[in-house]
Amino acid sequence: MKILLIGAHGTIGSAIRRELSPRHEIVEIGRKSGDYQVDISDSESIRQLFAQTGRFDALICAAGNVTFAALADMSESDFALGLQDKLMGQVNLLLIGREFANDGASFTFTSGVINREPIRTGSSAALVNAALDGFVKAAAIELPRGLRVNSVSPTVLEEAMDKYAPYFRGFKPVSGADVALAYAKSVEGLQTGQTFTVG
Amino acid sequence: MKILLIGAHGTIGSAIRRELSPRHEIVEIGRKSGDYQVDISDSESIRQLFAQTGRFDALICAAGNVTFAALADMSESDFALGLQDKLMGQVNLLLIGREFANDGASFTFTSGVINREPIRTGSSAALVNAALDGFVKAAAIELPRGLRVNSVSPTVLEEAMDKYAPYFRGFKPVSGADVALAYAKSVEGLQTGQTFTVG
Repeated sequence: MKILLIGAHGTIGSAIRRELSPRHEIVEIGRKSGDYQVDISDSESIRQLFAQTGRFDALICAAGNVTFAALADMSESDFALGLQDKLMGQVNLLLIGREFANDGASFTFTSGVINREPIRTGSSAALVNAALDGFVKAAAIELPRGLRVNSVSPTVLEEAMDKYAPYFRGFKPVSGADVALAYAKSVEGLQTGQTFTVG
Repeated sequence: MKILLIGAHGTIGSAIRRELSPRHEIVEIGRKSGDYQVDISDSESIRQLFAQTGRFDALICAAGNVTFAALADMSESDFALGLQDKLMGQVNLLLIGREFANDGASFTFTSGVINREPIRTGSSAALVNAALDGFVKAAAIELPRGLRVNSVSPTVLEEAMDKYAPYFRGFKPVSGADVALAYAKSVEGLQTGQTFTVG
């Protein structure tokens, strides 16, 4: 398969490359690195990406930004980044990318644990993650041509604990390799409308 | 209790009034009717509302607009109404309203069944409903002064079936009176961070 991997050089993206590259052609996409660049918060940038990549069999997004801040300090504007970047960025990858998707192609998005297990400063992340899981469940039943869409909802990664441990006390981290399996299940299996939780 | 009820004259809001008015002071708020008016998609309108109502013990929102359209016909702009109105409208009622909330006051928002049981044309509604349920779960753990926040997620109402039946074939509708009980549980109980499903 030709797989577009957005966020290819991040912690999760690197693990996905290791899992899928022995069996598939991986097109590496990043905000600044990779074969092609995209800013998913900008739908025009997404259009330009697909014009360059052409048709594909699977798209994985392992990228997306959200504001983490104490709820006491948050106002409407602090929710805008998550809505425009991690949430609508991934929704737009489907809305725009479906024209370039071969029959039976899959979209696999990344949500996360915080709507299942909320943490301090996580109210925007919880909103966005839940929205993504809800969107894939509903969008899946309307997709034509055997197109599929799932999300992967990982807990905190072992590889990220040196940075994030203070926010995730008591959480048992999972390895990037284990998280990458969930993306393989989505891409190489046949399920649709699912959220694959890891951890 | 002094309860601010937004959407007071809608199908759900009318049932909530019948349930709660025998025991509480209900301030009726609507887009065009009621004691006060608000457009929840406009944060300045929300600020003006609270300047008029003053302090309160409970806020219920039974209002919120979302675009229903076939996924095949949807682009980014079709998601904007749901994000700005039903989703951020309700989030902003908490972000702005918390200053006016008495100690121990509750916020009760309305999501809906479509992220649990998706329907044709429901991808934006599923996204928004799930986002609200995720937000209340996370926001609840950060609220000070005993403030609480929950959502009510009803299936289609008996009173709305003449209009919505074609979209909800096979769904067993619930009465407005039964849905109103979930709001009473949120307002008059002590739970927080919950989504009360009805149907």
